[in-house]
Amino acid sequence: MKAVYYEGNKEFKVGACHPVAPGPGDVRLDVAYCGVCGTDIHIAHGAMDQRVPSPMVIGHEMSGTVAELGEGVVDFAVGDKVVVRPLDNRGEKAADRGYSHICQDLKFIGIDAPGAFQSSWTVPAFTVHKVPAEVDLKLAALVEPLAVACHDVRLGKVVSDELAFVLGGGPIGMLVALVARHAGARVVLSEISSYRLEFARKLGLEAFSPMETDLAAWAREQSGGSGADIVFEVSGAKPAAASMTDLLAIRGRIVVVAIYPQPVEINLFHFFWKELQMCGARVYEPEDYTKAIELIASGELPLEEMISQVEPLEKLPDVFNSLENNPESMKVLMDCRG
Amino acid sequence: MKAVYYEGNKEFKVGACHPVAPGPGDVRLDVAYCGVCGTDIHIAHGAMDQRVPSPMVIGHEMSGTVAELGEGVVDFAVGDKVVVRPLDNRGEKAADRGYSHICQDLKFIGIDAPGAFQSSWTVPAFTVHKVPAEVDLKLAALVEPLAVACHDVRLGKVVSDELAFVLGGGPIGMLVALVARHAGARVVLSEISSYRLEFARKLGLEAFSPMETDLAAWAREQSGGSGADIVFEVSGAKPAAASMTDLLAIRGRIVVVAIYPQPVEINLFHFFWKELQMCGARVYEPEDYTKAIELIASGELPLEEMISQVEPLEKLPDVFNSLENNPESMKVLMDCRG
Repeated sequence: MKAVYYEGNKEFKVGACHPVAPGPGDVRLDVAYCGVCGTDIHIAHGAMDQRVPSPMVIGHEMSGTVAELGEGVVDFAVGDKVVVRPLDNRGEKAADRGYSHICQDLKFIGIDAPGAFQSSWTVPAFTVHKVPAEVDLKLAALVEPLAVACHDVRLGKVVSDELAFVLGGGPIGMLVALVARHAGARVVLSEISSYRLEFARKLGLEAFSPMETDLAAWAREQSGGSGADIVFEVSGAKPAAASMTDLLAIRGRIVVVAIYPQPVEINLFHFFWKELQMCGARVYEPEDYTKAIELIASGELPLEEMISQVEPLEKLPDVFNSLENNPESMKVLMDCRG
Repeated sequence: MKAVYYEGNKEFKVGACHPVAPGPGDVRLDVAYCGVCGTDIHIAHGAMDQRVPSPMVIGHEMSGTVAELGEGVVDFAVGDKVVVRPLDNRGEKAADRGYSHICQDLKFIGIDAPGAFQSSWTVPAFTVHKVPAEVDLKLAALVEPLAVACHDVRLGKVVSDELAFVLGGGPIGMLVALVARHAGARVVLSEISSYRLEFARKLGLEAFSPMETDLAAWAREQSGGSGADIVFEVSGAKPAAASMTDLLAIRGRIVVVAIYPQPVEINLFHFFWKELQMCGARVYEPEDYTKAIELIASGELPLEEMISQVEPLEKLPDVFNSLENNPESMKVLMDCRG
């Protein structure tokens, strides 16, 4: 039973896990795997010390099994394979207008409250989703980022035969590309890392560097002069924000997935001229988890390829160091079993 | 029978109108009134000389009566009161995906082809809409800008009891505010001109200067902490673009009405965090003309107030000079009857 504690100021400590007995409505889980997310890397590099309590266990892209049920929990049995949708929306108010997944007082479990980089984790039962028994727990640890992609594609209203661009080929961009392709779109990935371009091509995606290809001209040429139907902006790069409106057809759509810490220049003339549409997309709603679990269980996406490494939990501090600005890795899973 | 010709290089010439016999499918109109649009002012100041042929009559916010029918025109009779939807979409292609009102090869009549600042005007019958006989032709000259507002409010999907902000209180902003209020919204106008603030208040609108009131705080206070449901950005001002995302509630919407010649900074973090939505809106579709004509015929909007002046057509060059950067005027109509 082990745990990795974030101590603040870029410091981690590997130690013993202290299982928490589940209170009423809670479930205690044995964590199997927990993936390393971009947000975890931000935390590890000290960028979120204002928000993240310390010492605290972080991590939220997990899979595991039910170990113990709190009072009143009837939907699960000990041994069930599960994943957690790490959103504590119990602070939801009328002002949130029903959008509880992004409510103003949302607590993100694993950032604002203890997370899953430990062998035993206790969470509210309403955050837990069952996974079919035949699903490999390594793949199940991809449910959380895959649910992000399902949310993005759902809010983007992708339909068959659309031409979709995904700007940015990190793990989320790659998953958005796979989900959009599964929804029937022709998907093109734009990325500047040659490793990631090659990775995308191995997944069967069309992939180009915007430094080498005039993507707007290419999009028009491939679409009889229209341009692309939809762009997913996942890169967080200023040049992507500046150029994304160029790629689109009349009434084309943009989904903003990336987190931009600073305002960026956008071509609002294109919004006016082509009546473009844009929406932001953040985390997921329960139906996105359902969809992600279905997709994983179906085996229809090449998700094994997305797992670059599986490391023992105690190597987490080293993993954070190795992932800093390293495009040559997709998803790293930590083996939390103890 | 008179006309005002734009000669290029900021020059106009007042002269005789040369009526054009209507060809097959055309209608010749006696122009009654033609309003001065912001785009006309841009043309008058030489800003669109690359696009506008010269010498040519400009103008497109007109009302009039049918004078003569071309071969095959059966939907109109001589004497009918009419307005023109000045969009020649005969260049529409498959690449425009059915959005003919903003098709790539759209010709805007009055910019790309001769317009209505003349006593007699010949246009394709498919651009003509009948106006009920009891509607005053001065008010009918407001149909075109009112149809812009109807398009904006329709694309914004405004519903009853929403809190709507209109940023910018020129003629289009004011009309958007009136149409959104008619759709049931509580409408707040943001504007820096004290004349326009006072004008809006006389129309019964709530109106504030963003230099004096923290509108984001006000919006939250008035909405139980949510923020506004929708923002119409009509000002074209950088500070408005920078701050519009602040005003909005979770899943709030922005309609970009203004024409921004240069890219501007937008807070994409707010798009992500609150899952905001934004769309551009340009000109109008036939149903927006139908709605605008209905609204004018109903007498439910205080549109008489929107007409600041009615001047004889030959004064058009003077009117252009007087309107340059002058916020103390709403709509000026030119009397084109001759």
